[in-house]
Amino acid sequence: MAIEGADIIKAAGLLGAGLSMGLGAIGPGVGEGMAAAKACEAIGRNPKEAGLLTRTMLVGQAVSESTGIYSLVIALLLLFVV
Amino acid sequence: MAIEGADIIKAAGLLGAGLSMGLGAIGPGVGEGMAAAKACEAIGRNPKEAGLLTRTMLVGQAVSESTGIYSLVIALLLLFVV
Amino acid sequence: MAIEGADIIKAAGLLGAGLSMGLGAIGPGVGEGMAAAKACEAIGRNPKEAGLLTRTMLVGQAVSESTGIYSLVIALLLLFVV
Amino acid sequence: MAIEGADIIKAAGLLGAGLSMGLGAIGPGVGEGMAAAKACEAIGRNPKEAGLLTRTMLVGQAVSESTGIYSLVIALLLLFVV
Amino acid sequence: MAIEGADIIKAAGLLGAGLSMGLGAIGPGVGEGMAAAKACEAIGRNPKEAGLLTRTMLVGQAVSESTGIYSLVIALLLLFVV
Amino acid sequence: MAIEGADIIKAAGLLGAGLSMGLGAIGPGVGEGMAAAKACEAIGRNPKEAGLLTRTMLVGQAVSESTGIYSLVIALLLLFVV
Amino acid sequence: MAIEGADIIKAAGLLGAGLSMGLGAIGPGVGEGMAAAKACEAIGRNPKEAGLLTRTMLVGQAVSESTGIYSLVIALLLLFVV
Amino acid sequence: MAIEGADIIKAAGLLGAGLSMGLGAIGPGVGEGMAAAKACEAIGRNPKEAGLLTRTMLVGQAVSESTGIYSLVIALLLLFVV
Amino acid sequence: MAIEGADIIKAAGLLGAGLSMGLGAIGPGVGEGMAAAKACEAIGRNPKEAGLLTRTMLVGQAVSESTGIYSLVIALLLLFVV
Amino acid sequence: MAIEGADIIKAAGLLGAGLSMGLGAIGPGVGEGMAAAKACEAIGRNPKEAGLLTRTMLVGQAVSESTGIYSLVIALLLLFVV
Amino acid sequence: MAIEGADIIKAAGLLGAGLSMGLGAIGPGVGEGMAAAKACEAIGRNPKEAGLLTRTMLVGQAVSESTGIYSLVIALLLLFVV
Amino acid sequence: MAIEGADIIKAAGLLGAGLSMGLGAIGPGVGEGMAAAKACEAIGRNPKEAGLLTRTMLVGQAVSESTGIYSLVIALLLLFVV
Amino acid sequence: MAIEGADIIKAAGLLGAGLSMGLGAIGPGVGEGMAAAKACEAIGRNPKEAGLLTRTMLVGQAVSESTGIYSLVIALLLLFVV
Amino acid sequence: MAIEGADIIKAAGLLGAGLSMGLGAIGPGVGEGMAAAKACEAIGRNPKEAGLLTRTMLVGQAVSESTGIYSLVIALLLLFVV
Repeated sequence: MAIEGADIIKAAGLLGAGLSMGLGAIGPGVGEGMAAAKACEAIGRNPKEAGLLTRTMLVGQAVSESTGIYSLVIALLLLFVV
Repeated sequence: MAIEGADIIKAAGLLGAGLSMGLGAIGPGVGEGMAAAKACEAIGRNPKEAGLLTRTMLVGQAVSESTGIYSLVIALLLLFVV
Repeated sequence: MAIEGADIIKAAGLLGAGLSMGLGAIGPGVGEGMAAAKACEAIGRNPKEAGLLTRTMLVGQAVSESTGIYSLVIALLLLFVV
Repeated sequence: MAIEGADIIKAAGLLGAGLSMGLGAIGPGVGEGMAAAKACEAIGRNPKEAGLLTRTMLVGQAVSESTGIYSLVIALLLLFVV
Repeated sequence: MAIEGADIIKAAGLLGAGLSMGLGAIGPGVGEGMAAAKACEAIGRNPKEAGLLTRTMLVGQAVSESTGIYSLVIALLLLFVV
Repeated sequence: MAIEGADIIKAAGLLGAGLSMGLGAIGPGVGEGMAAAKACEAIGRNPKEAGLLTRTMLVGQAVSESTGIYSLVIALLLLFVV
Repeated sequence: MAIEGADIIKAAGLLGAGLSMGLGAIGPGVGEGMAAAKACEAIGRNPKEAGLLTRTMLVGQAVSESTGIYSLVIALLLLFVV
Repeated sequence: MAIEGADIIKAAGLLGAGLSMGLGAIGPGVGEGMAAAKACEAIGRNPKEAGLLTRTMLVGQAVSESTGIYSLVIALLLLFVV
Repeated sequence: MAIEGADIIKAAGLLGAGLSMGLGAIGPGVGEGMAAAKACEAIGRNPKEAGLLTRTMLVGQAVSESTGIYSLVIALLLLFVV
Repeated sequence: MAIEGADIIKAAGLLGAGLSMGLGAIGPGVGEGMAAAKACEAIGRNPKEAGLLTRTMLVGQAVSESTGIYSLVIALLLLFVV
Repeated sequence: MAIEGADIIKAAGLLGAGLSMGLGAIGPGVGEGMAAAKACEAIGRNPKEAGLLTRTMLVGQAVSESTGIYSLVIALLLLFVV
Repeated sequence: MAIEGADIIKAAGLLGAGLSMGLGAIGPGVGEGMAAAKACEAIGRNPKEAGLLTRTMLVGQAVSESTGIYSLVIALLLLFVV
Repeated sequence: MAIEGADIIKAAGLLGAGLSMGLGAIGPGVGEGMAAAKACEAIGRNPKEAGLLTRTMLVGQAVSESTGIYSLVIALLLLFVV
Repeated sequence: MAIEGADIIKAAGLLGAGLSMGLGAIGPGVGEGMAAAKACEAIGRNPKEAGLLTRTMLVGQAVSESTGIYSLVIALLLLFVV
């Protein structure tokens, strides 16, 4: 066996990257889906405001997306930088 | 036994890829389904706006899909690049 | 015992493939079911728009299916390519 | 003890097959049940459209079934091909 | 200790069979129950369509049952073929 | 220590039998309870159709029971045949 | 240490018995409670049909109980026969 | 160390007894509470039928209790007989 | 190290006692709370029947409490008798 | 290393005490909160019966509290008596 | 290595203290929040009874708090007395 | 290796501190959010009572906060005193 | 291998920090989102009170945020002070 | 094997970083999605107040985002500083 300490570190980093992105995609995925669902409902009732509602939905989703992007950043850092 | 450190790293990467994509598909799958469900409901009530609602649904789903795609990217990186 | 490092990698890949597809089927399965449920409800109320609603349901499900297909791709890659 | 590396790989494959099919049956099972439930409700209200609703239900369930079939495919591959 | 590799494979297969059938019975069991519940509700409101509703319920449940049967198939394969 | 490989296989089979039946009883138990609940509700509203509703409930429960019976079969096979 | 293989088998059987009965009591317990709850609600609204409703509740619960009894059977087999 | 095989069996039996009773108390506890909740609600609306409703509640709870009693029986068998 | 088999048995018994009482308190705690909540709601609507409702609530809670008491009995047996 | 069997027993007892009280506080905490919530709602509608409702809430909570107290008793026994 | 049995006991006690308080804070935290939410709703509807409702909320929360305090007591005992 | 018993104790304490605060923040965080949500809803309906409602919300949240603070205290004790 | 006790302590501290902040962000994140959701709903109904409602939302969120901040504090202490 | 203590620390830090960001993204992602969903609903009803509602949504989301940012900070500290 020729396992060095650096190998253990790398292996932990790869496992951590998978967990970070896998778990981190649950929240934004569900949350943005709820926003899209309600936006469709609202446009169906009030189609004259479709532009306004689409913009609001996208702004709200963009903020919710942020934690998913943080997870991506951490996963990429765990893969390439560390 | 001839297990090298590089083998441990690779094994951790493959396990991490499976967890990243498996967990990362739960959120967008449920969220996009909610969006599609509400879009059908809205079109059933207001079929004149079907084009507008389909477009809104697709835009909302596209944003929600993004975390699923991040998970795919991380899984592919864990498989081939690292 | 004659366990090589390549065996450990392969074993981790097979376990990862099972987890990726197993977990990755939960989200789309539930989400697409919700879309189908609401589409049936909407058609029951407004059967004149059945074609439009079926098309919307299928488009929405197709997007939701995508994360399930990503999981399949990752599982197949873990099985055959790596 | 005469455990070869190929045995470890096979054992991991069998465990992975069980997890893939077991977890992968949860999502479609629940989702298709929701579609069937709503279809019954809609037919009860509007029995004249029973054929249309049954068709819509089956189309929606077929898409939802797909991830269950992917899980079956991965499990069979883990059992016989790998 | 006289544990051969074939014993490890068999043990993993038996455990995998238990997990596959145990987990795989949750989804269809709940989903079919929801379909039966809504069918009873619909027949209570509209008993004239009982035959139509029972047929729809059974068709919907049959599709939902499929993932349970896949789990059974995988479990039997894990028990007897592998 | 005189642990043979056949003992490991048997132990895994017994544990698998317990998990298969224990997990496999959750889904049908909850699903059939939902069917019984809705049947009581429907009979309370429309007692003239009690025979029809009881029959529908029993048919729906019988299908839902099937995955529970599959779990029982797998558990018995794990106990006595393997 | 004088641990025989038969001891490992017996220990796994006892643990499996506990898990089978413990997990297997969750589903029927909750499901039968839902049936009893709805039966009380229905009798409160329509007390003239109390006998009919009690009979329906008991029939529905009896079917739901079956998976609990399967769990008991498997647990007893794990305790005494195996 | 003087650990005999019989000690391992006994320890597994005690742990299994705790899990069987602990998990097995969740389902009936919640289910019977739902029955009691709905019975109170129904009596509040229709106090003339209090005797009938209390009897129905108790019958329904008694059936739901059965899986809890099975768990107790298995736990006692694991403690004293095995 | 002077660990006897009897120590392992005792340790497993203590851990099992904690799990039995800890898990076994979840179900009755939630269920009895639901009964108390609905009883308060019913008394608020129909305060003339407060005595009857309090009695019904207590009877329903007493049955629900039973599984909690079984857990206590098993925990005490695991502590003192075994 | 000078670890005696009595140390293992004590350690298992302390861990069991933490689990017993930690898990055992979830159920009563949630259940009593539901009772308090509904009592406030009922008093807001019918403030003349505040004394009666407070008494009912306290009686219902006291029964729900009992499983929390059992958990406390088992935890204290695990700490000091065993 | 100079690990004494007393160290194992102490370590188990500290871990148990963390679990006891961490898990034990979930139930009361959620339950008391529900009570506060309903109290605000009731005061918004009936502000003349604010004093009465605040008092009821506090009494109900105090009982719900009790299991949180039991968890604190057990955690402190695990830290300092044992 | 120069691992002393005191190191094991300290490590268990640090892990316990993380679990205590991490788990202990879930309950109050959700519960206080529910209180704030209902307070906003109530003020939106009855803005004249904003002061009264804000005070009630804060009092209710303060009680709910208490278990979070207990968790903080236990975590700090695990970090610095033990 | 040159692993000192201080290394084990540090590693446990880093893992504890990750768990403390990761778990501790779930509760406040969900709770504050509920508060923001209801505040938007209330402002949409009663836009004249937007200032009052925004202030109430922020006060309620600030209290809910507190447990998130406690988690941050514990995580920072685990990283730098201990 | 040449594993130093510093390697264990680093590996624990990387795993902790993945868990911190992965778990920490669930809460804010779901919570902000709820806020965005309700904001769309409110704007659909009252489009004249779109600016006010978008501002409120963003303020509420910003506070909810804070725990996600704390998780990011802790993960970055675990990656680069420690």
